[in-house]
Amino acid sequence: MSEKSDIDALIDLMARLPGLGPRSARRAVLHLIRKRGPLLTPLAELMGRVAETARECLNCGNVGTSDICAICNDEARATGVLCVVEDVADLWAMERSGTFRGRYHVLGGTLSALDAIGPDELRIPRLVDRVTAEGVEEVILALNATVDGQTTAHYIADLLRDRVALSSLAQGVPIGGELDYLDDGTITAALTARKRL
Amino acid sequence: MSEKSDIDALIDLMARLPGLGPRSARRAVLHLIRKRGPLLTPLAELMGRVAETARECLNCGNVGTSDICAICNDEARATGVLCVVEDVADLWAMERSGTFRGRYHVLGGTLSALDAIGPDELRIPRLVDRVTAEGVEEVILALNATVDGQTTAHYIADLLRDRVALSSLAQGVPIGGELDYLDDGTITAALTARKRL
Repeated sequence: MSEKSDIDALIDLMARLPGLGPRSARRAVLHLIRKRGPLLTPLAELMGRVAETARECLNCGNVGTSDICAICNDEARATGVLCVVEDVADLWAMERSGTFRGRYHVLGGTLSALDAIGPDELRIPRLVDRVTAEGVEEVILALNATVDGQTTAHYIADLLRDRVALSSLAQGVPIGGELDYLDDGTITAALTARKRL
Repeated sequence: MSEKSDIDALIDLMARLPGLGPRSARRAVLHLIRKRGPLLTPLAELMGRVAETARECLNCGNVGTSDICAICNDEARATGVLCVVEDVADLWAMERSGTFRGRYHVLGGTLSALDAIGPDELRIPRLVDRVTAEGVEEVILALNATVDGQTTAHYIADLLRDRVALSSLAQGVPIGGELDYLDDGTITAALTARKRL
């Protein structure tokens, strides 16, 4: 069926997206073909444009469409507080909460002895430079509560301890969380960090 | 954040695909940006090409890149057997099984009094024409085993009863199916249509 090859190739590529398999890729492609005008054509154009313009911010590692991202360019966010995250997805999650008004630093992963990822594979040297260059007063270590995330947080804390104030996200019961469904570690953390009313 | 707008717009469009929500659309877009060369650029090109070339086969309603699809053009498939399906997705599913070597007719939905879908909204008049024009000897009604699907099958059967042999897909226990997980209707159908060994 050489005639259908473009459509088949599109299904194969779509199936390589995270969260889609062969079946959902087929459904998505049929949907795209049916909604050609409102969905497929604009999607093709946007993807082409993003493929050309998307790049990592040279300063913080965020993904944007210019060499320095909108957050780094925003003077109102030069608050002297830097939030260190593992990944752009984590930065986006922090931004959605709308609470943090400082700047970010995306490490691009965590230290991992197994995968031979040391400080120089991450954006850690650049973080140290920024702390000096931007007059940072506080570094919030918003790394994931995993073993690798916490190892990385300790490493960075050791590096920067004498130069800036350090903090990490509070650990405890998630909003809306039910105790019955929480793991023991979370309950222990929430109990240890309990607040007086 | 006007600077990020192309990426945000891409996330919004991706979230409108079936099977993706806002969260998985964000993951997919980050993945696409990271795999720009091997994934995002070819995907943008393919989507653009498919948006331009994809069309419905004028004969059977299959989706392809020319006015008459590869199956309708394939002389080896002029076997006199026509398989009627609701949807292109059903046609693809039949093709994956690799068993059927005749041609298809895609109705584009089912009759539905509630949604005001009558025979003329579907490709039913064209089916009647094809039966005559292509010298069809058997019509397989491979419609879904839903109320609307079976109503449509009965309607078509009444139309064509005097002109061609009609058949429908066998109903019974799916291959690999466990009785314990099957609904009562399927077990009843399988029992009624039991085969002597």
